[in-house]
Amino acid sequence: MEYFLGIDVGGTNVKVGLVTSEGELLEKRKYPTADLKQASGGFVLNFIRMVGEELKAHHRVSKVGIGVPGMISKDRQSTVEMANLPSLNDLDLLPQLKKAYPSISFFLENDANAAALGELYFSETSVPDDFLFITLGTGVGSALVLDGKIFKGGNGNAMELGHTICSTGKSVEFEVGKAGIMRMAKEMMLKHRDSKLHKIERGEFDSKKIVKIALKGDEAAREIFKYGGKIIGEGLVNAIRILDVDTVIVGGGVSKTFDLMDDSINAVLKKHLSNYYMNNFQLRLATLGNEAGIIGAASLCFIETELTRDVK
Amino acid sequence: MEYFLGIDVGGTNVKVGLVTSEGELLEKRKYPTADLKQASGGFVLNFIRMVGEELKAHHRVSKVGIGVPGMISKDRQSTVEMANLPSLNDLDLLPQLKKAYPSISFFLENDANAAALGELYFSETSVPDDFLFITLGTGVGSALVLDGKIFKGGNGNAMELGHTICSTGKSVEFEVGKAGIMRMAKEMMLKHRDSKLHKIERGEFDSKKIVKIALKGDEAAREIFKYGGKIIGEGLVNAIRILDVDTVIVGGGVSKTFDLMDDSINAVLKKHLSNYYMNNFQLRLATLGNEAGIIGAASLCFIETELTRDVK
Repeated sequence: MEYFLGIDVGGTNVKVGLVTSEGELLEKRKYPTADLKQASGGFVLNFIRMVGEELKAHHRVSKVGIGVPGMISKDRQSTVEMANLPSLNDLDLLPQLKKAYPSISFFLENDANAAALGELYFSETSVPDDFLFITLGTGVGSALVLDGKIFKGGNGNAMELGHTICSTGKSVEFEVGKAGIMRMAKEMMLKHRDSKLHKIERGEFDSKKIVKIALKGDEAAREIFKYGGKIIGEGLVNAIRILDVDTVIVGGGVSKTFDLMDDSINAVLKKHLSNYYMNNFQLRLATLGNEAGIIGAASLCFIETELTRDVK
Repeated sequence: MEYFLGIDVGGTNVKVGLVTSEGELLEKRKYPTADLKQASGGFVLNFIRMVGEELKAHHRVSKVGIGVPGMISKDRQSTVEMANLPSLNDLDLLPQLKKAYPSISFFLENDANAAALGELYFSETSVPDDFLFITLGTGVGSALVLDGKIFKGGNGNAMELGHTICSTGKSVEFEVGKAGIMRMAKEMMLKHRDSKLHKIERGEFDSKKIVKIALKGDEAAREIFKYGGKIIGEGLVNAIRILDVDTVIVGGGVSKTFDLMDDSINAVLKKHLSNYYMNNFQLRLATLGNEAGIIGAASLCFIETELTRDVK
């Protein structure tokens, strides 16, 4: 058994976990991203220091996987563009880490790609070697696993499905990202005076609350996710036409509403895709849940590991 | 120098050409597809016979590339689904050809993929190893070349960009395929009483005539291709977000109107794509023109040939 560190860099927290080569998360810790930014030396220096402390605390670890929320170089050595974490832009992160800790192997990936690899290696159910992964949260991320490997596209940053154009002329993420869900909720509140959405207090008004109310059966709130399903369906049609895959795995916090979106997603797929695509089509939930980020980051360590996944 | 046969199977004609390994088309012949269908024995038998006659006439040929208008098996041995040529559906074409002519190597590809490979090997200008190819004709075809190879996606038939959904809620091909152009032309005729479009006679009303009138400067006809450019731009945004490529090559008969579409394509790209995508972006015309189908099919013979392309 090997021990990996999985580091999930997010706009709010940097989460670090000790993960075994069997995908078990043994312990985790989180560092508020703002603290790492504000401490003297700036984000990168503090991030490298934090990695050093974690390595000291876990001396059995010789491989560290890092998932970051944005674009990275095709050779997976540097960051390119992080929309919500610009202090990480254009940084030769892996060479710097390698210089600080020469005996450790580091692996860098986009966070949605890392989460998809996590499903590939550690899903509770059988996962094929080719699948599309979509993660619904603050934003809409996606990844493609082809022949058991992350698909990088031409320049290294394929699969920005959230930024494809849907039938409204806007992006998928504009419609069903956190801001889109909140916008829709406000529209529904105007139409449905009796909706439980009105009980959310101003300061608490966020997409998590809306998800909760929808799951409790509020019709107006459910409408939001039915509409969301239609838009996600359109994004999936486009991705499937371009990539010719027949398994789609849905993760992320908003995927809790999967049962509310499922019918409208499938209606759009059936309308726009022929039997060739639909005969073996599978749409299903990711299994790793809240820890997908950490476990996905840890699974990056398999890239150069002899161990191969069990196909269950 | 080697000699290849390139066979471009279309709904109207099957075109066969003798092509050198330098991409020169030495001679060509066409067989009306309807004749091959109607002659006794049916399409496949007649196709195999026709290949036999061509091989007899060109005894230096030991490799034959075949482009077909539809979906094929991932192993490139069989056809799967040809929307406009259903007599070719689900056929073990390569094993049958190999059985009939055991000393010959055969290669099968989708026609848009073949045309893209043709550009890769035989373009008049320098072509990078990663590019998106889109062909505008009766339908809208597309292909992706990644690392100098055809991208097959998960199940073998990636890149149906014509069937992706655009901002109208319909497919790109619905809007800008031959039928879409004719539909738009009728709308424009209602709006513009003085347009030269009115001079087209009923029986002659087709997209080629509309292209000609637009190229002569008729404003109403030009509007059609400006609109077409917007829709193609949306398809390209989605493909670029999913595939992360920065070179797009446009071929097919309707690409003659490229100058009319160029501005509106670029306006959509600039609106929806960040600098990351646009900094090195190139949109340009294919160079092989009318013979792209035959030369593309012949270029399939390079797949197992020692010869590699000259990077100009």
